[in-house]
Amino acid sequence: MKIDELYALLRRRGVLWPTAEIYGGAQGLYDYGPLGAALKRRLESAWASWFVGRSPDYYLIEPAEIVPEAVVRASGHLENFTDPEITCDACHTSFRADTILEKVRPDGVDGLSPAQIEEVVRANELRCPKCGAKTLSVPTAFNLMFDLPFGVARAERAYLLPETAQASYLAFARMWEVGRKALPLGIAVIGRAFRNEIAPRQVLFRMRSFTQAELQIFFDPAAPPGRLGPHGSEKVPVLRADRRERGEGSTELVSAEALVAGGLPEFYVDHLVHMLRFLRDVLGYPADRLRFFEKSEKERAFYNRIQFDAELFVESLGGFKEVAAVHYRGDYDLRRHGEGSGKDLSVSRGGTERVVPHVLELTFGVDRNLWGLADVHLGRDGERTLWRLPPYLAPVSAGVFPLIAKEQRPFAERLAHELLAAGVDAEYDEASSIGKRYARMDEAGTPFCVTVDGLTVGDGPEHGTVTVRARDSKAQERVPASELAARFAPSLRPPRPEIP
Amino acid sequence: MKIDELYALLRRRGVLWPTAEIYGGAQGLYDYGPLGAALKRRLESAWASWFVGRSPDYYLIEPAEIVPEAVVRASGHLENFTDPEITCDACHTSFRADTILEKVRPDGVDGLSPAQIEEVVRANELRCPKCGAKTLSVPTAFNLMFDLPFGVARAERAYLLPETAQASYLAFARMWEVGRKALPLGIAVIGRAFRNEIAPRQVLFRMRSFTQAELQIFFDPAAPPGRLGPHGSEKVPVLRADRRERGEGSTELVSAEALVAGGLPEFYVDHLVHMLRFLRDVLGYPADRLRFFEKSEKERAFYNRIQFDAELFVESLGGFKEVAAVHYRGDYDLRRHGEGSGKDLSVSRGGTERVVPHVLELTFGVDRNLWGLADVHLGRDGERTLWRLPPYLAPVSAGVFPLIAKEQRPFAERLAHELLAAGVDAEYDEASSIGKRYARMDEAGTPFCVTVDGLTVGDGPEHGTVTVRARDSKAQERVPASELAARFAPSLRPPRPEIP
Repeated sequence: MKIDELYALLRRRGVLWPTAEIYGGAQGLYDYGPLGAALKRRLESAWASWFVGRSPDYYLIEPAEIVPEAVVRASGHLENFTDPEITCDACHTSFRADTILEKVRPDGVDGLSPAQIEEVVRANELRCPKCGAKTLSVPTAFNLMFDLPFGVARAERAYLLPETAQASYLAFARMWEVGRKALPLGIAVIGRAFRNEIAPRQVLFRMRSFTQAELQIFFDPAAPPGRLGPHGSEKVPVLRADRRERGEGSTELVSAEALVAGGLPEFYVDHLVHMLRFLRDVLGYPADRLRFFEKSEKERAFYNRIQFDAELFVESLGGFKEVAAVHYRGDYDLRRHGEGSGKDLSVSRGGTERVVPHVLELTFGVDRNLWGLADVHLGRDGERTLWRLPPYLAPVSAGVFPLIAKEQRPFAERLAHELLAAGVDAEYDEASSIGKRYARMDEAGTPFCVTVDGLTVGDGPEHGTVTVRARDSKAQERVPASELAARFAPSLRPPRPEIP
Repeated sequence: MKIDELYALLRRRGVLWPTAEIYGGAQGLYDYGPLGAALKRRLESAWASWFVGRSPDYYLIEPAEIVPEAVVRASGHLENFTDPEITCDACHTSFRADTILEKVRPDGVDGLSPAQIEEVVRANELRCPKCGAKTLSVPTAFNLMFDLPFGVARAERAYLLPETAQASYLAFARMWEVGRKALPLGIAVIGRAFRNEIAPRQVLFRMRSFTQAELQIFFDPAAPPGRLGPHGSEKVPVLRADRRERGEGSTELVSAEALVAGGLPEFYVDHLVHMLRFLRDVLGYPADRLRFFEKSEKERAFYNRIQFDAELFVESLGGFKEVAAVHYRGDYDLRRHGEGSGKDLSVSRGGTERVVPHVLELTFGVDRNLWGLADVHLGRDGERTLWRLPPYLAPVSAGVFPLIAKEQRPFAERLAHELLAAGVDAEYDEASSIGKRYARMDEAGTPFCVTVDGLTVGDGPEHGTVTVRARDSKAQERVPASELAARFAPSLRPPRPEIP
């Protein structure tokens, strides 16, 4: 589906809509309705199972989203978290530089200095996209952080976190005390990040308030975490930076072992594969719509030593889009916060030797992937509109219908209640025809529909049995109602990583 | 425990700590560590089961926490969401007026005008709590909202939500379309609210960023939701406003039926009882530490027609504290947002008649109750420090220990993994003595500890069985490992309301 069609469907079904919709919305802000909120919770829980669940030394915390200025000064965001912005001197509209340069530099402006951007504007005689004038200003740096008037005097400065990662770095010293006092130590956050984007667009892909799921693994560079093991033979779709620079722009499938042989560290490739498996095996993205896009030294932030962005081909947006990433950040973060706070963030590596831990960051855009799950799995199947979500991600696990409400309502309501009490997210529905109820559940991605009929409440041999209809195959089966919870349970739990 | 002792224990165990602790913290901001974050998730999920789970027409949504200025103008927050603030002209420190008046008016300053507050300050010759000077200024109104420079020009104004309720009012029109187009309709939010408190204090009781769980029930005043039914005979501890005004300050236990006979609407009392049952039966607060404090017309916001605050006696803070509330808000909210947005928010009540729905608001402070769960359930039992959390609220559901790590590690690790895969939050621990491992789990509130020993991995008749030790009784039992998940499951699910 195209973006407009998909967005209209998601809006109509109450998956999401613009914040303050009755006031005309607010740019870059969205509310999740019942289906969207439930899908988001399940996606977050699947992420936590897969990433935080990989080691007993990985912990999920929930930090505040506001930090004092000293934090963003030390992290470098106060100085560097900017987008080049160009204003039209005629109509006074501001634009992201990459919007202005879109046609002549479709790859964006990463790595270009303001002077270089200005040069491109001049050389191509670019015009204001709004009024058409050639009066575009010199690019300036626009800081994307939201600052807050904090405290009574409004003199203290505080900032909404531009990335959840910072909260994990701040928590390292405390978590070292709380945990086993050993490396590797993982600190994960699923939380909000805030960016005053110059040009919010593409619905959930550039928002001003959004949810990140990030795991920071702190480790001793002399003993990095992660061995390839059975991951060695996995084929990873990569687009290497050096090949791109030589103009060879196609994705290759390279085995994990070969990536290591080619010079990437084993621990890094191991986590690249772990991410690939999450996107492909847990979220169900088709392998041929995924690629790992390596950022060159110029393109990545200076503190990132290695960076591959996981990209999904998003049909509704017409191209590959970043949905996750694996960053090897070195010791930059703890070093800077150690300097900024005056607190020694090095730890003992046994004996008297100390080390400032390095960080491997696994980052994942929750909202973008929620859109990804709609883009990939929601579509038409003949007459039906069907959301083929993996069952453990579906907002509603089971629809429960009485065939004839006035006859089977008590049994069906009781069954829905029992399923809920047993941990199955059941939804009772008695409105309109069975066909329409199936259709509503198909659109919501509900994997199982349970119908209570005359036989269920009758005296015959089928007393107490119900019809279960599978979403994708439409296959129906007669099952004792009392066995439903146990039958559904295994498919409703997200996959977990193996014991290493 | 006193506040300092309890806070120190919670910090040491990594339940919570000040945000940006290495930078000296930030006033009114806290991070939840692994145990705190898990407890918070469970508390939120128990709340949702109990309140949102009460009707299929109640929905949980996840809105953005930023809204445009027009929203807070219509809601009245721009004009009225203020605290009276007094500044010392000598030392330039600002205080909440109720801090200054604390000793002469311990009940606070609700209902007093700035002129009346000034009169109290003069009459009592009050001094600056910091420098002691008598140079306190005239009280001024300090708006508690955080405003944001929104958009590129930083000219649009946006605000962090001061209460999650507003997001539900904004969503009403969309949810009407998404739902059954019938009243009552419930919209719930578990989300952040932000207040630039003049004097954050008492750890989780007055924060600048905090989590609310709120359910707004929209209904036709001609057909309000909720009949007493079996709730009729419940005894509700109430402190009525009229009695307080007559100086009869004690809590009485009044049956729900008697409250209705005394003039409170039946639907309102029904929800008061539902809230009481949540606090008492689901969270396990002792009945004699709870009371419903009725706000008088002067004390409550003008749009609240009836307001009872649920208060818990919090030992660590030395008094009763508000932890939840039930507000009958009339049609104020939809009327104001209808006017503000220019959109008709009335709905058809059948035929051609239309009605602007009234709102019954059930509000619950997640952070305050997290503290409440520590205050009430965490304490000493002889030598032990024990957190007697209801099992479905405990951050860790089961500890899994090998008696001798090098002999039983594989079995115990596999068992922990299997429990996790079956949905039981198990934690593997092989560090130090069994006694110390029990003690760690007791402090964390873990209801079950499972020990794998020589018999488990041996060839005898007890092969495959493990020892399960109950937290509160310390009773031990020998159980087949394969039966653990099914055995633990029922106690790990939060209670749900009955089918009406």
